[in-house]
Amino acid sequence: MGLLSEIPDITFSNPFFCGILGNTLLSTVPGVSGAGATPEKTLLTPVLDAELITWGAITSHPVRPDTPTGCPTPASITRAMMDLCGIEPLFINAGLRHPPTVPCLDVYGTIGDDPRYRDAVPHAKDLIRKGEVIGKFLSKNSDLLILGECVPGGTTTALCVLRALGYEACVSSSFVNNPVSIKEDICRMVLERIRADGISSHLDIIRYAGDPMMPVAVGIAKAYTGNLFLAGGTQMLAVSALLKKEGQFPLPYVVTTSYVRDDPSANIRHTAEQIGLNIIFVDPGFGDIGHPGLARYCIGEVKEGMGAGGAMFLAHLMGHSGEEIRNTILTAVSAYS
Amino acid sequence: MGLLSEIPDITFSNPFFCGILGNTLLSTVPGVSGAGATPEKTLLTPVLDAELITWGAITSHPVRPDTPTGCPTPASITRAMMDLCGIEPLFINAGLRHPPTVPCLDVYGTIGDDPRYRDAVPHAKDLIRKGEVIGKFLSKNSDLLILGECVPGGTTTALCVLRALGYEACVSSSFVNNPVSIKEDICRMVLERIRADGISSHLDIIRYAGDPMMPVAVGIAKAYTGNLFLAGGTQMLAVSALLKKEGQFPLPYVVTTSYVRDDPSANIRHTAEQIGLNIIFVDPGFGDIGHPGLARYCIGEVKEGMGAGGAMFLAHLMGHSGEEIRNTILTAVSAYS
Repeated sequence: MGLLSEIPDITFSNPFFCGILGNTLLSTVPGVSGAGATPEKTLLTPVLDAELITWGAITSHPVRPDTPTGCPTPASITRAMMDLCGIEPLFINAGLRHPPTVPCLDVYGTIGDDPRYRDAVPHAKDLIRKGEVIGKFLSKNSDLLILGECVPGGTTTALCVLRALGYEACVSSSFVNNPVSIKEDICRMVLERIRADGISSHLDIIRYAGDPMMPVAVGIAKAYTGNLFLAGGTQMLAVSALLKKEGQFPLPYVVTTSYVRDDPSANIRHTAEQIGLNIIFVDPGFGDIGHPGLARYCIGEVKEGMGAGGAMFLAHLMGHSGEEIRNTILTAVSAYS
Repeated sequence: MGLLSEIPDITFSNPFFCGILGNTLLSTVPGVSGAGATPEKTLLTPVLDAELITWGAITSHPVRPDTPTGCPTPASITRAMMDLCGIEPLFINAGLRHPPTVPCLDVYGTIGDDPRYRDAVPHAKDLIRKGEVIGKFLSKNSDLLILGECVPGGTTTALCVLRALGYEACVSSSFVNNPVSIKEDICRMVLERIRADGISSHLDIIRYAGDPMMPVAVGIAKAYTGNLFLAGGTQMLAVSALLKKEGQFPLPYVVTTSYVRDDPSANIRHTAEQIGLNIIFVDPGFGDIGHPGLARYCIGEVKEGMGAGGAMFLAHLMGHSGEEIRNTILTAVSAYS
């Protein structure tokens, strides 16, 4: 099988990669997120990921770019692909607890609040508008955009938003064992708040249940005029469902790894069909790549993040073979080991 | 006379405009800065300027885009030129008191402290490094960069830095009557601190006496590979002098208005000669343009700011005639009146 499930019929000359960074307080609920050594530390992960990709190393904190179980972070993959492609990525700060250690295009949002008890994204409409400014800016300077995200806990906000919009969604997880019951409990409480307050518009659903990445991504996608690819798993399905509500047609492709597709606790293809969007799956074949940490992606750990699937997809579109992509990733993550 | 004192012999296909926003506490010293209705309000000016240029209107605060005496702000000119050229500008937050109301590429700096009493830019070296990240990013996506700035009080930090570097500089002002004695008093105190502590390296001089715009501009200029133009008056001479200390050769052009050149209280051409750089002067002929506020530029009010000179220069390079540029500015500022 090839690296990509589908190769889109497009031409481009100025590709661009953006990663939207955001936090939701839900990642600090014990058991929700695997993106950090402790629940509290998940809030720092987007900052560390952006630092790794920008400088090639994390120097601001004494941490290694792998998970507690020794999996290289998806940011390592994204970094390797940026190097291979000669692309300088742009990070967007949609709302973080900790200040970034690298330059970010900042919309001056705030960390997403706990949607069980309070409005998660009070200024969702303002963030969409600022996303549109960014989308216009990117349109002037590129004709292909890979739009990734890094939001620990973001699959849970995606679950809440997709369910509130009426989809029978089951979302993925960076854990081998998706903490489905914790997520379902949270989702039940959030949906009760939404129902109790008679909320139905998609803007109010972001406000009640989303995270700051979502409205920024929606704004960028609305304004971007080139070839757009939303790089991420179930979180980008939530963005797509919101875009559909905004009247966006056709919806952009979603690009993600085969490891998200193969997550038995999720139903990404079923949800995508309901929304009416196409997904391109990237299968880098980490199982036999010769690195035990990368091989753990195949048993369902990590799976995706920081647009890693989209970054590999872009490298392939730019003419790099699957073998070259695999070798580059192996060399890069081995250097950290 | 033509619009430009010199037309550089360059070709380009992807022009870019950046405005670096920054604050220094010096702008709150009464009498130092004309960029705001009160000393305290000068701190908000970069935010309002970026808002005007991005949205075409200031809606976050009940203020008009002109000075207390009815001069259209230079940001109005920059906005008009961006519209004319079809360019989406990028703003860089080098260190501001107030959060911007539009997306900015943020280096997570802090407002410049009062150099009379404390280090003005404690993390100057870190800001240069972040500027380099931005310069590399911009190099991938453009081949011509107009780099403007908006730092109220910034001519006073420029004076301190230029004098500390050994230049016989006299800096310009946005006031008709340059508050030379206030600036000289401040500069004397700053130079005494520098002398007392035996400071001589240019990095330490930024740290002691500069503002956050300077190291960010230095970093961008060091890393940028296309045609670079520093758009501003005496403040960009300070940046150039710092670049010279960084071993940058040749130095980029400085582009500014003829109103800065004609400031009898400053000596921009003399200082430029000492540094060894070329300046392109833009003369938009506001005296007979038919707008009393713009005509006040000719008697020495405002003069320059937010890369306005550089924006007019860019419009001309992109094929717009002096008449078209003047008419566009007149139409734009008349719409605010």
